[in-house]
Amino acid sequence: MDHVMANITQQFIDWYEKATGIYISADTMAGKSETGSFPDPELVWSFLFKPGFFGTAKVIDGSQRVIEELNKKYEVFIVSSAMEFPQSLPEKFEWLAKNFPFIKWQQIAFCGSKKLIKGDIMIDDHLKNLEFFDGKKILFAAPHNVLAQGYTRVNNWDEVATMLL
Amino acid sequence: MDHVMANITQQFIDWYEKATGIYISADTMAGKSETGSFPDPELVWSFLFKPGFFGTAKVIDGSQRVIEELNKKYEVFIVSSAMEFPQSLPEKFEWLAKNFPFIKWQQIAFCGSKKLIKGDIMIDDHLKNLEFFDGKKILFAAPHNVLAQGYTRVNNWDEVATMLL
Repeated sequence: MDHVMANITQQFIDWYEKATGIYISADTMAGKSETGSFPDPELVWSFLFKPGFFGTAKVIDGSQRVIEELNKKYEVFIVSSAMEFPQSLPEKFEWLAKNFPFIKWQQIAFCGSKKLIKGDIMIDDHLKNLEFFDGKKILFAAPHNVLAQGYTRVNNWDEVATMLL
Repeated sequence: MDHVMANITQQFIDWYEKATGIYISADTMAGKSETGSFPDPELVWSFLFKPGFFGTAKVIDGSQRVIEELNKKYEVFIVSSAMEFPQSLPEKFEWLAKNFPFIKWQQIAFCGSKKLIKGDIMIDDHLKNLEFFDGKKILFAAPHNVLAQGYTRVNNWDEVATMLL
């Protein structure tokens, strides 16, 4: 979900500006950790535990349209590493219901680690999630993974559509 | 979790008695669906959507002791089909933190379907969960599965300990 369906980078930028008055451009983030571009990374990290952070995230361009089409052709599961932030669990569920109403509860999983997930194809922004996956691995581009090598990379949902639809 | 770590049968009995004054003994439940022994199955089903139902469930005898030992020998994940009851997500997380404090958030997954779970051994009370699993399947005895054939069955956590420790 995060950085693939939900625009968490923009959410970090917006919440940081609201809290400090400092605007950090996404252009400065390439190759750094998710919080590494901000003068106060611990403040950014603390946002992840705040009510409303995940629930108000914007949808990443094209994700609704393409996932709705994928959902007709494939057995789609939405798997989110959400367990570190327990307050996010109902928020993420409601966010999916609102923005991806064609995804049924049977298709949703919130986990701590994606090591226990099996499937044919995984689309993810984090190498740590793709690492243990047995199927085809697709790295969804995000500022924090621009330097990653050796993975099939997609830059946006149009590229996912071209590859899988 | 349910019927394996959390005593949901007892919770059904207690909540039903509280709501209707009618006590249904667990002895009458063998071979019936989880709600099938109660005069009003829909009322029982509605409990699953009520705040507090999962959070106040009693722990199944021996589960804490044996899972703590399993956790030293194996890489343990707690996987619960919780997504049908979204209000249960934070409750189940807190229930685990309270009753199984040695289980870290990295080891927890809440899903809609267990079809996407991989692993070496699955202990579960529902055939529908074991059905798609690629590893060793262990059926944990519950009233609703007494008639199931063809699975390795354990009747309690002492038997799990004998088998796996």
